[in-house]
This record gives sequence, C-alpha cells and structure tokens, in this order.
Amino acid sequence: MGSDGKKISMAVVKRLPKYLRYLGELMEKGEERTSSHELSKLTGFTASQIRQDLNNFGGFGQQGYGYHVSQLQSEIKRILGLNNKYNMIIIGAGNMGQALTNYVGFEKMGFNITALFDINPRLIGLSIRGIEVCDIDELSNYLLENKTDIAIMTVPKSAAQDITNILVQNGVRGIWNFSPIDLKAPDEITVENVHLSESLMTLVYRLNK
Amino acid sequence: MGSDGKKISMAVVKRLPKYLRYLGELMEKGEERTSSHELSKLTGFTASQIRQDLNNFGGFGQQGYGYHVSQLQSEIKRILGLNNKYNMIIIGAGNMGQALTNYVGFEKMGFNITALFDINPRLIGLSIRGIEVCDIDELSNYLLENKTDIAIMTVPKSAAQDITNILVQNGVRGIWNFSPIDLKAPDEITVENVHLSESLMTLVYRLNK
Repeated sequence: MGSDGKKISMAVVKRLPKYLRYLGELMEKGEERTSSHELSKLTGFTASQIRQDLNNFGGFGQQGYGYHVSQLQSEIKRILGLNNKYNMIIIGAGNMGQALTNYVGFEKMGFNITALFDINPRLIGLSIRGIEVCDIDELSNYLLENKTDIAIMTVPKSAAQDITNILVQNGVRGIWNFSPIDLKAPDEITVENVHLSESLMTLVYRLNK
Repeated sequence: MGSDGKKISMAVVKRLPKYLRYLGELMEKGEERTSSHELSKLTGFTASQIRQDLNNFGGFGQQGYGYHVSQLQSEIKRILGLNNKYNMIIIGAGNMGQALTNYVGFEKMGFNITALFDINPRLIGLSIRGIEVCDIDELSNYLLENKTDIAIMTVPKSAAQDITNILVQNGVRGIWNFSPIDLKAPDEITVENVHLSESLMTLVYRLNK
C-alpha cells in the first residue's frame, strides 16, 4: 500500500529493490541527499519514472532539495516489509541450499535462517554456518514449535509438491521456490519462483537475436 | 524471429521455457499430441493466450488435431536457440558456482561447463564434477584458447565489473550475472541478471499485502 492507501502496481514494487540497492551504496559513500537525476544515472530508469514511482508513497522529495537518502531508504524498506524480521527455513541442504545459507546478505536484510532440512543421511546432523541440517521427517514437528515465515525450496521437483503441502498445513505463508515446478498452493500462500533454467533460456534467446 | 520474420516480444519469449517444461513432461508420459486447452490447464495461461503465442511461430497446431508434442518442443527449442550447444565458464567457485556446476540439467539443455575460475588458492586446482577450478589470473589466456559463449558470474560485486571487462575484451558475448550489481557492458553483450535479493524482497512485499 502507498501512503494514501492506493495499491502499488507490481511493476513499481519490482523496481524498489533496485532503488534500495543504490540508496545503500549512497549511504556507504556518506551521501545524505540525492535527486531523481542522480538515481536515474545509477539505476538507468528515467528521472520522471523515478519521481512517479516515489510519488506512489507520498513523495518524500522536496522541491530544490531532492531526496533524503536514509529517509527514502527507510521508507522503501517499510513499504517492502523489510522493517520486520523473518524466520526462514531451507528445504534441501545440497549445494544450492548451502549457497543460500552462506549468503550473509539475507541476514542484513532481516532474514534469519533457523534450520535446513534434507532426506540425505550424510547431510542430516551437519551444521552449516552454525545452522543444523535436520531430517525432513521432522519438518512438521519443527513447524509446530518454531514460527516460520518463509521456506526456501531447493529440492528435486519430484519432492517439491509433497513438501509444499506439509508447509501449507503447518502455517508457512511464503515459499521461495528454486525447484523447476509450479507449486500448487492456496491463494493465501505467496510463492515466488526462481526458475534458473528459464532465465538461462532467456539469455540464450537474446544472445541469438 | 518468428517464422514470418516478425520480431517476437520478450513477454512471449519469457513464456516459452514454461511451455518447454510442460512439453517435456508430456513427452516423458509418452503423449504424442496436446491442445491449447491441455497446455492451459498445465501452465495456467489461457488457451487463447497460448494459441496466440504459438501463432507467432507460424502456428504448428492443426484444426481438430491440436499440437504435435515433439514437433512443438523442437520448434520452441529452435526459436530459443537451444538447438545449438554453448560453452560456459563459471567465475566464482564458491557455493553458488559449485551449485550451478553440479546442476546436470544445464547439460541436457546443451550447455557445457568447461571451466571454473576463482581467486581463492584453496579452491584453485580442485575438480568439481570433473571440471577444473582455474586461477582467475589465467582467465584472459583461457578465453584466447577456448571458445566461450557464456560466462556465469558468481563473484562479490567488488570484483564483478573488472571481470566483465576481461570477458568483453576477450569475446564473451553472454553474461549470466548472479552478482548484486548492474554490470556495464557494450550493447552487443547480453547480460541476464539473477538478482536473488530482489526476488526475496518481492516475496516479502507480496507476503505482507
């Protein structure tokens, strides 16, 4: 929701993380203010597009001043929901699951990985960056006892739907899906897909144009 | 290009991998023909959308028959450029680089990973699924001697631009970028980004709606 209660289009929402990334870089450089023109140079969006996007949230810009970097950053974080903390589990402790566990950037964003799950006895019991790999059979029990906002799915597609059903039954409302399958879940569950093969195919199409 | 030489919109192109995925599943089940209605049930796109998409390529459907599964699959592969083989290297042999190396699905699609590169002496010389991790200092020489179509970037953002420059200077035309940075490259270079943090932020926004 924007500051006036209007619904923000997903096209705008999908640009917000990019604003946030560059605002973070400006913060690191110690810059206190910025403008739609500077943001345009950084992001590649037009200055008018940027002003229009940010107007959705009540327009933090001031004529002749521009935008206050940290204020704009906080506001975008609030809009995205990044002012809250989230507990995440990872289903599938293979390479991809471990890569995501080891990415400390998620923690800085407020995401706390609490456990990994796998079916492989050689992985169960391991600790990755201090986070335990549990037996997938313990998933239901774990979810009963530990509030979990988001599950990251990095399992083969043959297992993904059954696990989704367990997640949904146990109140997990967000699924970040890396398995190459379209998961079936009730409308109130948010599924965000990262279909890597599809991204690679798009690259190849563009490469051949 | 479509069969009539018309340019296909990226919106259509981005749906093609999904068609391909479900056509592959139909093939596995031994089904020889399908229809826009069946594809609609599988993909979630409307039947009319599907007919319109496939008409871009000359319309392989026949009135009263529908689509020939393997013929449609070959045609979509041809359009995407998946009837060719591609040599890929991976820059960054950390967890993400290793996860991508170990994903055999890319090979089935015609992508051949020929080498990994890293700056870390503990990784250099290792062999991952039979593929050697080379010293990043050897990158230029390697590219002079080995035709490379695509480079996968899984390095920290501080290193990503310098490496991109080396890739571009040595004739690599496609970059699949996992680093959280917008790479600067000439227009003739195709950069496809997988910005995982941005995907996670979109998930969280939708979760909070």
